[in-house]
Amino acid sequence: MKIISSVSEMQIFAEELRRSGKRIGLVPTMGFLHEGHLSLVRRAREISDAVVVSIFVNPAQFAPGEDFERYPRDIERDKSLLQSEGVAVLFTPGSGEMYPQRFSTYIIPEGISSVLEGKFRSTHFRGVATVVGKLFLIVQPHAAVFGQKDAQQSIIIKQMVRDLNFNLQIIVAPIVREQDGLALSSRNVYLSPEERNDAPILFQALQKAEALIHTGETDAAAIIHEVEKTIRGKKTAAIDYVAVNDAESLTEMTTTQTGRPVLISLAVRFGKTRLIDNIIVQQ
Amino acid sequence: MKIISSVSEMQIFAEELRRSGKRIGLVPTMGFLHEGHLSLVRRAREISDAVVVSIFVNPAQFAPGEDFERYPRDIERDKSLLQSEGVAVLFTPGSGEMYPQRFSTYIIPEGISSVLEGKFRSTHFRGVATVVGKLFLIVQPHAAVFGQKDAQQSIIIKQMVRDLNFNLQIIVAPIVREQDGLALSSRNVYLSPEERNDAPILFQALQKAEALIHTGETDAAAIIHEVEKTIRGKKTAAIDYVAVNDAESLTEMTTTQTGRPVLISLAVRFGKTRLIDNIIVQQ
Repeated sequence: MKIISSVSEMQIFAEELRRSGKRIGLVPTMGFLHEGHLSLVRRAREISDAVVVSIFVNPAQFAPGEDFERYPRDIERDKSLLQSEGVAVLFTPGSGEMYPQRFSTYIIPEGISSVLEGKFRSTHFRGVATVVGKLFLIVQPHAAVFGQKDAQQSIIIKQMVRDLNFNLQIIVAPIVREQDGLALSSRNVYLSPEERNDAPILFQALQKAEALIHTGETDAAAIIHEVEKTIRGKKTAAIDYVAVNDAESLTEMTTTQTGRPVLISLAVRFGKTRLIDNIIVQQ
Repeated sequence: MKIISSVSEMQIFAEELRRSGKRIGLVPTMGFLHEGHLSLVRRAREISDAVVVSIFVNPAQFAPGEDFERYPRDIERDKSLLQSEGVAVLFTPGSGEMYPQRFSTYIIPEGISSVLEGKFRSTHFRGVATVVGKLFLIVQPHAAVFGQKDAQQSIIIKQMVRDLNFNLQIIVAPIVREQDGLALSSRNVYLSPEERNDAPILFQALQKAEALIHTGETDAAAIIHEVEKTIRGKKTAAIDYVAVNDAESLTEMTTTQTGRPVLISLAVRFGKTRLIDNIIVQQ
């Protein structure tokens, strides 16, 4: 596995791969890898000749007061995991490489970036779209794989690819969960034993919502109420939001009777740890 | 000369050119071509194997009330001019191709887009950066040629290329002028005979400023005063701004004694027609 930390070196290597007819698959990550990330890497391997995994804890997508500084990092462990997955290139640029002095050009996804997560993290998706756009231009992938856990992120990236004419395919891979249903997340290590014990309530609540829809409930308010009631049963949980949206456009739904896939998503704080989860229900 | 109006067809053809080892040179224009544009095309031919000229009157860079609707167009004349210049591809996408329904992702150059032109045309450079970014992703050029007349535009594009890691070279070609010094512009056709007669005052004023600097004047206010006084000598002229900036960073200068190149730029209205011009003075 090649390890590259320079933007221009990565760009040159990507050009060479392309010129020799290789299909490049990109998996952008912030490191501290878990099985969820590795499932994306495996998906990328299936559809490309050379997998590039980027590890970059992107300061532009954290607001002041969020967990940028303490975000968990373990680059040596990440390296050995990626090595065993047959990754061709680990791209680990420094902050100064990605955001040099006087950096001032941003990619801004308007509209869909201000709902859900964007309501709570106002500059988050500006940071995500900008760094992902940069990674696309540096790594020049034919396909990039994102996780369904960040549901809004993958919708915003798809919109960016369409709007700005990035010539590549976006693949969204399913959420990987612990045995008890907790979605894998690098942030799970922040949880106290009690919080960890309560956290699987998120998926249980989402499953209740799915069951409700399948038994004929179409009122978004009723679905949200059921999810919130379930989560409130755990005293370490504090809800940021529970929402019902169109799974493609992110339009808010008041009734799910549209025949379109429904995204039920949530963000819940356990102490200082903010977790997100979601489920897509096919009606 | 190939004429392409579909984004995906252009993208496929550009991929083919790249795969066969051809260097692509792009000249983005809004059409109604004059010798200024043709000088950019010739520059592009010198440094590439296949020149792509785009003609697209970009709605996103016009504000309501500006001249989008009446912007001059003459596609048949443009075609025959480009044909004789040995252009490989004329790319003429429609608005619906470039900005499909629910388009919502913009490239925003912060900071330097709110001074000079940006102060008078607040969403102008957002529109410019977005459309140029899209053209780069569609045409995939190795180099793109812009005119020095839009001085701020070329600085913003260079900054965008650096910030977002577009892997291409930006070339800025000198202003082409009429015999009497008026900078060529598609908008010159709007001028009444009297306005046309007065308009060469812009370049005369810029030349006075250059001479002033060369005789030792370093006070930006004095230089601006001289330019404004000269222009006010013509009664059809109404000044939007005259400014002295660092030619690379666009930082406003109060004194030119820095050893760095100085950009003297201006925007002046003649009736309903707004003209821009500039000069770079090497100290």
